[in-house]
Amino acid sequence: MAERLHVESSARDELVDITDRVRAVVKKSGVTEGVLHLWSMHTTCALTVNEGFDPDVVSDMMTFMRWLVPQDAGFRHAEGNSDSHIKVAFFGPGLTLLIEDGEVVLGRWQRVFLCEFDGPRPREVACQVVSS
Amino acid sequence: MAERLHVESSARDELVDITDRVRAVVKKSGVTEGVLHLWSMHTTCALTVNEGFDPDVVSDMMTFMRWLVPQDAGFRHAEGNSDSHIKVAFFGPGLTLLIEDGEVVLGRWQRVFLCEFDGPRPREVACQVVSS
Amino acid sequence: MAERLHVESSARDELVDITDRVRAVVKKSGVTEGVLHLWSMHTTCALTVNEGFDPDVVSDMMTFMRWLVPQDAGFRHAEGNSDSHIKVAFFGPGLTLLIEDGEVVLGRWQRVFLCEFDGPRPREVACQVVSS
Repeated sequence: MAERLHVESSARDELVDITDRVRAVVKKSGVTEGVLHLWSMHTTCALTVNEGFDPDVVSDMMTFMRWLVPQDAGFRHAEGNSDSHIKVAFFGPGLTLLIEDGEVVLGRWQRVFLCEFDGPRPREVACQVVSS
Repeated sequence: MAERLHVESSARDELVDITDRVRAVVKKSGVTEGVLHLWSMHTTCALTVNEGFDPDVVSDMMTFMRWLVPQDAGFRHAEGNSDSHIKVAFFGPGLTLLIEDGEVVLGRWQRVFLCEFDGPRPREVACQVVSS
Repeated sequence: MAERLHVESSARDELVDITDRVRAVVKKSGVTEGVLHLWSMHTTCALTVNEGFDPDVVSDMMTFMRWLVPQDAGFRHAEGNSDSHIKVAFFGPGLTLLIEDGEVVLGRWQRVFLCEFDGPRPREVACQVVSS
């Protein structure tokens, strides 16, 4: 089953928790054993799974990324967002999540995030649920 | 086929070679053509594939990560392991390995590693073998 | 369907656009709905998807990686390519691309790249197309 998630980010960089929407895609598919493939349709927006309980984790992560890859680091690309492309290379554009007993397999603290690195913008995530 | 690997790490950060255990999961499944999806159930522990022949490679890698993302970098997260979460974002929580002729497809020097970034701890890796 | 792509890189570090070859693998397979798994058979060569329109993006990315992980950073590994192994850990050795209507699902600016970090060398990418 193929589907698109539409996400609106609200800042230049931001981790948007999409766990509940991802779980809803799996529920809707009716698949009980298999995988869910997720794909960011963008070159300045990634996907990752990390802690979503203490908001300081996400905040520390974004502060660190801003320090590590500054927007104004003398890059040549005229759009001024080479830092965003590099951050996407580090976090990655796709995720494959396992499905068992009709549920996405996630550890206790794991949440699924869209990683906005050049927002705010409307973003699209391609989803494919595969039964095994 | 769904299964869990249980791994005990023995240091704060460490790459634990799980290649033989991963191969055993595939053997046990009887799948000859397909893929093996692996997923770390944790937010401070990742999975990667890299060189496992010369131990200096793994050692250089961990030394570099400690330098790049220091544990004590003024992070806000009170647990003191924001560096671990960031390292997981870079290495990634999941892997999809190919299976051909009943074997995991790996290059000559490639080994599968659990990447411990906040140990020592017991860790769990979810596995799913899918026949194609 | 399992297949190998053979790629010749021409510099120590380089992003080689393999999008057209990846698309050809999918066409040849005849699969209309499913996924394409790609795997670098090497420990100093990764795979990623990023912008391929303005060559400055790729150039900025490689310049940044050379600065972030210098080849001569006092590493212990005698082969002198620990930086290459670290870059592979960041970019990742594998990709799973979605297939819909017989086409690889990519955003407008997305291109698939082999990431050479220790060339020039002949490289091999394992491919597996799976129908869903």
